[in-house]
Amino acid sequence: MAQLLRVQNFSVSRDGFGAGENQSFERPFGHADPAALVAWAGATASWPNRTDPGGSRGLDDYFTRDFSHNIGAEIMGRNKFGPHRGPWGDHQWQGWWGTEPPFHTPVFVMTHHERPSFTLGDTSFHFVNADPVTVLELAKQAADGKDVRLGGGATIIRTFLDAGLVDTLHVAVSQIDLGAGSRLWESPDELDDRFHHEVVCSASGVTHHLLWRR
Amino acid sequence: MAQLLRVQNFSVSRDGFGAGENQSFERPFGHADPAALVAWAGATASWPNRTDPGGSRGLDDYFTRDFSHNIGAEIMGRNKFGPHRGPWGDHQWQGWWGTEPPFHTPVFVMTHHERPSFTLGDTSFHFVNADPVTVLELAKQAADGKDVRLGGGATIIRTFLDAGLVDTLHVAVSQIDLGAGSRLWESPDELDDRFHHEVVCSASGVTHHLLWRR
Repeated sequence: MAQLLRVQNFSVSRDGFGAGENQSFERPFGHADPAALVAWAGATASWPNRTDPGGSRGLDDYFTRDFSHNIGAEIMGRNKFGPHRGPWGDHQWQGWWGTEPPFHTPVFVMTHHERPSFTLGDTSFHFVNADPVTVLELAKQAADGKDVRLGGGATIIRTFLDAGLVDTLHVAVSQIDLGAGSRLWESPDELDDRFHHEVVCSASGVTHHLLWRR
Repeated sequence: MAQLLRVQNFSVSRDGFGAGENQSFERPFGHADPAALVAWAGATASWPNRTDPGGSRGLDDYFTRDFSHNIGAEIMGRNKFGPHRGPWGDHQWQGWWGTEPPFHTPVFVMTHHERPSFTLGDTSFHFVNADPVTVLELAKQAADGKDVRLGGGATIIRTFLDAGLVDTLHVAVSQIDLGAGSRLWESPDELDDRFHHEVVCSASGVTHHLLWRR
């Protein structure tokens, strides 16, 4: 079975932004409210950060629990990992996710500023200064036969889309507008020349876009 | 995490039948055409019997690939296992699925006529003459912390529903009528007093009903 490159549960605003402007340590999504963007996932039984036994088990839960299905590695952009620009200064920052990041696989962070790898729980972070084809090859080797998740942000997803490397995308469009920030698309239809495209409306109010390579 | 009892990918006709009348060795679904009932799943990339690399990766594929997600055992009725009525005669029959059944866990077959357990691939079949509560307890022990799939047919699902033992159901309604056979429900709404209920239409023409305990 071929190893796929999959975008899983990437949430964008109605106007196509995956994050807002002015990212900082306090605001990983910039001016965007992450709770509004990912409320659909947070309400499900399978949400990884859930601390109570409740949560819905309808359509949205299928997407939430598919997040790690057959995934053996993740690729992310540097600004999903942290708000830094330019050289690191020091290496104390270990991501937004505390001591148990939700990835549970090797994670490859694309950056012009490399730093030593480290491990938190069963997630390892590796910093690579390389082109998309090379990074994907590294991630596939690390994934040990499983698929690779393309974690975002929007800029990294666009880079891999433009290089023709993405096999499937699941994008959840929330009913908020952001106006500016890191943009995935102008319209969900703009990839239709290259991807099959199904649109599914959820009772929670988000619209799920499912795309897979033609 | 509590172990759930889950109905996964159970296909019924528009009038609520999971199989037709007059089951035989040649016709496991009786007068119903199983291809028509499960065409939605057979068209997906994750269909277990797929022999070519194609298949859709849209909504229906999420359900197909969730079939075994966190499942550690299955419970099925005797007539999902085979067309026999009454005593077995001999024990040569080993199910409809050849040498590699798609379950990959222990399977508990409910029957008044017990016979020795056996193993095919990584699936083991166990024949139990007991009430639903007892069989569910056996299956949960065998599932080793994972959930238990209630595989059907419709009669067994009704039995466990009437005993209040089912936690979640995914039922795919196909656009065919059968008129008679093994019936799951008169209407998908009849469980709404006990279950949350989401309805999702797929591009393939089936309607997915997602129910989880209130």
